Amino acid sequence: MNAPLAVKVTMPPQRLLSACAVAYASVGNVGVGFDILGHCVAGASDQVEVHRIDTPTVRIAAIKGCVEVLPMDAAQNTAGAALMALRKALGLQHGFELTLHKGIALGSGMGGSAASCVAALVAANALLERPLSRESLYGFALEGEAVASGGRHGDNVGPMLLGGLVLATRDRLLRIPVPPTWHCALVHPHVVLETRKARAALAGDYALSEFVAQSANLALVLAGCWQNDAELVREGLKDVLVEPRRAPLVPNFARVKQAAMDHNALGASISGGGPSVFGWFEHHADAEAAAHAMRSAFNEVGLDSDTLVAPVEGPAAQLIPCIEGERQA
Amino acid sequence: MNAPLAVKVTMPPQRLLSACAVAYASVGNVGVGFDILGHCVAGASDQVEVHRIDTPTVRIAAIKGCVEVLPMDAAQNTAGAALMALRKALGLQHGFELTLHKGIALGSGMGGSAASCVAALVAANALLERPLSRESLYGFALEGEAVASGGRHGDNVGPMLLGGLVLATRDRLLRIPVPPTWHCALVHPHVVLETRKARAALAGDYALSEFVAQSANLALVLAGCWQNDAELVREGLKDVLVEPRRAPLVPNFARVKQAAMDHNALGASISGGGPSVFGWFEHHADAEAAAHAMRSAFNEVGLDSDTLVAPVEGPAAQLIPCIEGERQA
Repeated sequence: MNAPLAVKVTMPPQRLLSACAVAYASVGNVGVGFDILGHCVAGASDQVEVHRIDTPTVRIAAIKGCVEVLPMDAAQNTAGAALMALRKALGLQHGFELTLHKGIALGSGMGGSAASCVAALVAANALLERPLSRESLYGFALEGEAVASGGRHGDNVGPMLLGGLVLATRDRLLRIPVPPTWHCALVHPHVVLETRKARAALAGDYALSEFVAQSANLALVLAGCWQNDAELVREGLKDVLVEPRRAPLVPNFARVKQAAMDHNALGASISGGGPSVFGWFEHHADAEAAAHAMRSAFNEVGLDSDTLVAPVEGPAAQLIPCIEGERQA
Repeated sequence: MNAPLAVKVTMPPQRLLSACAVAYASVGNVGVGFDILGHCVAGASDQVEVHRIDTPTVRIAAIKGCVEVLPMDAAQNTAGAALMALRKALGLQHGFELTLHKGIALGSGMGGSAASCVAALVAANALLERPLSRESLYGFALEGEAVASGGRHGDNVGPMLLGGLVLATRDRLLRIPVPPTWHCALVHPHVVLETRKARAALAGDYALSEFVAQSANLALVLAGCWQNDAELVREGLKDVLVEPRRAPLVPNFARVKQAAMDHNALGASISGGGPSVFGWFEHHADAEAAAHAMRSAFNEVGLDSDTLVAPVEGPAAQLIPCIEGERQA
C-alpha cells in the first residue's frame, strides 16, 4: 500500500484569545493532613472563561451561577488575584478579563474559592505563548487562595491542579497513588461556614502528644495508599487534632460521621473548613449508601444537603470548550 | 539418579533452657517522625542471655559491658520489665534470669535501653513453647521502654524488632522500604544526655503551624522512601519541631550538622534524645566522609566520639549462639 499523500499546509500563527477551564470540588485536609493533603471530587465544579485583553490589567466581567456575592475587585477575588500574580511574575504586557461560573457553594468546605482560582489559571495559561506546567502554576494558585482564606495552604488548589490525592507542601505538589476503586462520599449541608471562622476555631496552643498521634495517623494513611492496603487507612484515617476543635461548628456532626462509619467507611471527617463531611470507602456501593445516611443525619437537624459520590482519584482541572465558542485572532 | 534414602528419626521433644539475642543501635525520631519513626544501625549492639528458671519471677543475674550502673531490680530495668510483662500476659509458670551485655552507651540517643529490652524479649521468646511473632512482642517492648523513658514510644524498639526503617504507632509496626544503598552516619560524642532531660526540653505548647510544616516534611520523607526518590527526602528531612528545642543540649550541634550537610547529606539531625547526631546519605562514601567531619566538629569542643556508618536498612534483632553454649533439657 502506498502511504497517503502528505499535504503540509502552513497556517499563519494563531493566538488563542479566550479559553475556558473547569476545576472540580475538593476535600481539603482529608482529616489527617491539615493544610497539606487533599483530593478532587467530580460532580461539582467551577468554570472560568478568560479573555486576553490589551489593557494591562485583570478585571472581572461577571460572576454567575450559585454564588453572586463575590468581590468584583480582582485583587480581592481568588481568581483575579491569582492572575494578577501570574501577570506580574511573567511580566505580561496584556491583561485578562474573567467570567466566573460558580458551581461550588462558598463556605461549604469543598474548595469553592480554590476552584475558581485554579480554573482561571488553567484557562489563562492556555493563552500564554509558552504555557507553564501545572506545578509551575502552584505558586500563583497559593496567592489566590490566600485572598480567600488568609493563608497559603495548597490542600485544595494542589489536587485541583494535578488531580487525584495530592500532598501539597509549601514548595511542591506530589501525587499520592490511590486505588481507583476507592470512593468518597461528600455531603454538603445547606449552611455556610466561613473559612475564616473555621480557622478561628483552631486558635490556641497544641500539645506535642496531639501531634505525635496525628502524624502517626497521617503516616498510616499514606502507607495505606502507597501499599494499596485499606486496613492501614482504616487505622489511620482519624483526625485527632483538628476535628475535635471544629466539630462543634458542624451541625449534628457526630451523627453524620457515625452514619458514614456505619457503612464501612475507612474514615470520615470534616471536608476542608466544613461544614461538608466526607467519608472514604473501599467500594462504590458503600459510599452511595453512606451518602444517603449522612444526608438523613443532617435532615435530623432540619438541614437539606447535596451529596456527591465519586472516586477519590478525582479529575484535575481541564480546558473545556467555551460556551460561546473560542475566539482566535 | 535415585533420590537419597529418607531416614526419619523421631527425637524426643526438646525444650530450650537458654537463649541469647542481639539488638542493634537505632536512630529514633529520624528528625521528622518524633516518637514514631526509627531505623537500626549495625555496628553497636546489646546482647542478652536469658535462662528459663523454675522460680516464677524475673531476675537480673548480671550487667556487663560498657554500662554497669543499671538497675538490677527487674521492675526498674527495661529488659526485666519487658519480660515481666510477657510473663504476666501469657500466664507463664516459669521465670527468666537475664544477663545483659551492654554495647550501647546509655544516654547516647542510640536506643541503648531499647536494645536490651528487645534482645531480652527475642531471647525469651525463643524459650516459649509457642514463640510469638515480632509484632506480638511490640507491646511488651513498649512496657520495657516506658521504664527507661517514661513514655510508650516505639521509635527505637520498633525498628529493632523488625529491622530497617519502621513506622511505630501506638498499636502497630510497619516497615517502610528504603533503597539498600542509602547509608547513615551516626556519631556519638562522649557525653551523657539523659532521655528524661531531653524530653523535658520539649515541655510547653506548640503552634499548629509548626505541626503543618513538620507533617509536610514527614510526608515528603515517607514519599521519598516509597518512591526511591532521594530529592524528596532531601526536601523533607528537616526537623522544624523538636530539633530547635533540643539543639542547645547537644554541644556544637550546628557545626556537627553542617559537617554532615557539607558532605551531601539528605538531611541530618539529633538521633533520638541526643546527643548523638545522624545524617542520611545516598552513597556510602559520602557517609564515611561525613562521619569523620562530624567527629571533628565534636572535637572542636573537646569531645571525643564514636562513629558508625551503615545502611539505613539496618538489621533486626536476632538469636545468636550463647557464649557459654546453649543448654537443652
